[in-house]
Amino acid sequence: MAVDVDVDDTVILSKMLFPLLINFFMAVICYIITVRLIPRLKEKFIKANLFGIDFSKTTSDKVPESLGVVTGCTFLITMFLFIPVPFGNNLLEKGTFPQDEFVKFIAALLSICCMLLLGFADDVLDVPWRHKLLLPTVASLPLLMVYYVSFNTTTIIVPKPLRDILGTSVDIGLIYYVYMGMLAVFCTNAINILAGVNGLEVGQSVVIGISIIIFNLIELSGNLWKAHQFSLYFMMPYIAASLALLKHNWYPSSVFVGDTFCYFSGMTFAVVGILGHFSKTTLLFFIPQIFNFLYSAPQLFKLIPCPRHRLPKFNSKIDKIGCSTTIFKYSELNTLGKLVFKLFKSFRLIQWEEKGDVIVTNNFTLINLVLIYFGPLHEAKLASFLICIQIVCSVVAFIIRYPFAWVFYDV
Amino acid sequence: MAVDVDVDDTVILSKMLFPLLINFFMAVICYIITVRLIPRLKEKFIKANLFGIDFSKTTSDKVPESLGVVTGCTFLITMFLFIPVPFGNNLLEKGTFPQDEFVKFIAALLSICCMLLLGFADDVLDVPWRHKLLLPTVASLPLLMVYYVSFNTTTIIVPKPLRDILGTSVDIGLIYYVYMGMLAVFCTNAINILAGVNGLEVGQSVVIGISIIIFNLIELSGNLWKAHQFSLYFMMPYIAASLALLKHNWYPSSVFVGDTFCYFSGMTFAVVGILGHFSKTTLLFFIPQIFNFLYSAPQLFKLIPCPRHRLPKFNSKIDKIGCSTTIFKYSELNTLGKLVFKLFKSFRLIQWEEKGDVIVTNNFTLINLVLIYFGPLHEAKLASFLICIQIVCSVVAFIIRYPFAWVFYDV
Repeated sequence: MAVDVDVDDTVILSKMLFPLLINFFMAVICYIITVRLIPRLKEKFIKANLFGIDFSKTTSDKVPESLGVVTGCTFLITMFLFIPVPFGNNLLEKGTFPQDEFVKFIAALLSICCMLLLGFADDVLDVPWRHKLLLPTVASLPLLMVYYVSFNTTTIIVPKPLRDILGTSVDIGLIYYVYMGMLAVFCTNAINILAGVNGLEVGQSVVIGISIIIFNLIELSGNLWKAHQFSLYFMMPYIAASLALLKHNWYPSSVFVGDTFCYFSGMTFAVVGILGHFSKTTLLFFIPQIFNFLYSAPQLFKLIPCPRHRLPKFNSKIDKIGCSTTIFKYSELNTLGKLVFKLFKSFRLIQWEEKGDVIVTNNFTLINLVLIYFGPLHEAKLASFLICIQIVCSVVAFIIRYPFAWVFYDV
Repeated sequence: MAVDVDVDDTVILSKMLFPLLINFFMAVICYIITVRLIPRLKEKFIKANLFGIDFSKTTSDKVPESLGVVTGCTFLITMFLFIPVPFGNNLLEKGTFPQDEFVKFIAALLSICCMLLLGFADDVLDVPWRHKLLLPTVASLPLLMVYYVSFNTTTIIVPKPLRDILGTSVDIGLIYYVYMGMLAVFCTNAINILAGVNGLEVGQSVVIGISIIIFNLIELSGNLWKAHQFSLYFMMPYIAASLALLKHNWYPSSVFVGDTFCYFSGMTFAVVGILGHFSKTTLLFFIPQIFNFLYSAPQLFKLIPCPRHRLPKFNSKIDKIGCSTTIFKYSELNTLGKLVFKLFKSFRLIQWEEKGDVIVTNNFTLINLVLIYFGPLHEAKLASFLICIQIVCSVVAFIIRYPFAWVFYDV
């Protein structure tokens, strides 16, 4: 019997590792191709009127914008070519083909491809704000449908402290689908609003992606290894394509990534989180984005006046970046606005100056928050600092996920 | 027993017709939304530098280009919302879900979405020619994979006259996949090269689409009704979205459709042809495109010199369009080029003038061929004429498919 078990283990191990090795190998090729392709395509993007001027530089060169679409396309092509690999043995033996695995694969790619299309259309055509919330919802429809078909478990385990009231588990039904749809909307937009410094969009995405990979690798030894293997199939080529982009997008940026990249990244994270059944853990890796969103909310929802741009301000004399400000009259805020302002003041979350009724304060973004405490900073340092925050938060996320999970759940 | 059969028939009839009715209804809504959306987005396209100047008009207004991406997106959204409908009953009863039907659906949408993304990227970035052949191949990979998983029948029925040599059926294996990949490449590019007159791209696509719909409706009464129902799910919203575009693209065009639309159309036809198992019939509806491709081939493959543009020539004085010409020296043609030239001359497929060694002849496109016999024509008349040819060819296709099929196959 002991021998049998060993043989089984070996079979599972090879089934688990062999496709992952191929995937890793293809990811490396994807990196090499992407990193060479991007500089070659720069001129085409500028010619197509897809460029921006870097506000935090002394020069005003045209920097090609939306290069995220190149990353997305090389990722998609890599995935298309990879599709047959995990189904290798099943392809040769008739009748053993795992349709449900396959459909998850295809639906995940459909959602990502759709988001890439919509993101690129947004970059080219400048879609209004309200559509930015609609597009990811549309793109996540195939995903939710597959979730319904493949799992349709909408039961959540109740955290221990609440079990006296709610019981061990609750079936939240439709709400679970609304939650997943909102997850897609959140992930796609959260990266997009923590942006504006060379390398920051890709940098944070790479940290989130690597965190997910580490989590998947840990969980490969568990019972749900298939879900985590599935996630790795997507995350490794994703990281490869993104690193290639980061190389050109890091300070001083020779290309910008565009909304395309933020949407593409967000959707990829949402896809693996939902279909890999670890959406809560995925959200844990978004701590800085969640903080940034909550901190920004008073301006996004117009409780505090919001200028057209909230990007930090470049000081060309010292080649450093300082925080940007907004000016308003305290008396013109509504009750909620006044409350928020007082709250932020008492927690020292903002820097402010009062001249009678007129108030000057920094714009409410994580970048500005860093700058009021540590700024002005050189752009490369600022990006590194923010990415370090992302890394620290990932460490915190792992501590919450592992050592502290027993507080809320039976592990 | 007779009653049982009747009940079964009714069940099948309702299973067949109910989703089609919903689909038709959604297609109508898709038309209404698309037809209103296009004029509203025109300014955005011009602002994004996506516009062209109409060479066949006396004015030189900017005409927004690539509006096919709007059509494609409304089509995709309609299809996303439609997905649950055909699986309605199976969704409620556990364990009866037809994964294989579902995966076909998702893979078809993935190929179309991918082609739409690549088409739009082509319009914006101007992809070189050789990539235009590569892109549809990539986009058709998920499709071929699904074909492999779902059917993997690469056996073809041999036409009667060849049965003595080859037998009743032959398994052509891998060649069948190459054929399907090439079908996708052909369909996407064939529409793209029969273009350049207001309304022609969309007009021909609508005729092909409606021909496929008629064919599907006829075959609904047969044993393979499911495949044809599947095709109708895609074709009805496709026609709706395209008619909305045609309304704005017909002479005088207020919008251009772009490569995006041609790719999107071609891929949609290839998808339903391949997954609906009627790729040969689909090709029959492409007679004018096949003719145009063969007729163009000597110029496309540089046997006969090919100018940058082969569009017909606008004569502003009479507001009519005449054929465009190419000039070359006969002695500079290679042997094959000389042979083709002589062949075309003897079949009166070209109009030519010889001044010693120098030859002036029309460019080898179907549009120019029509113009040398019936031109110069007003642009709207020319488009109508070409679309009439497409309709006549569809009638011929139906005659080949039905009354004459017994010559080649047992019907």
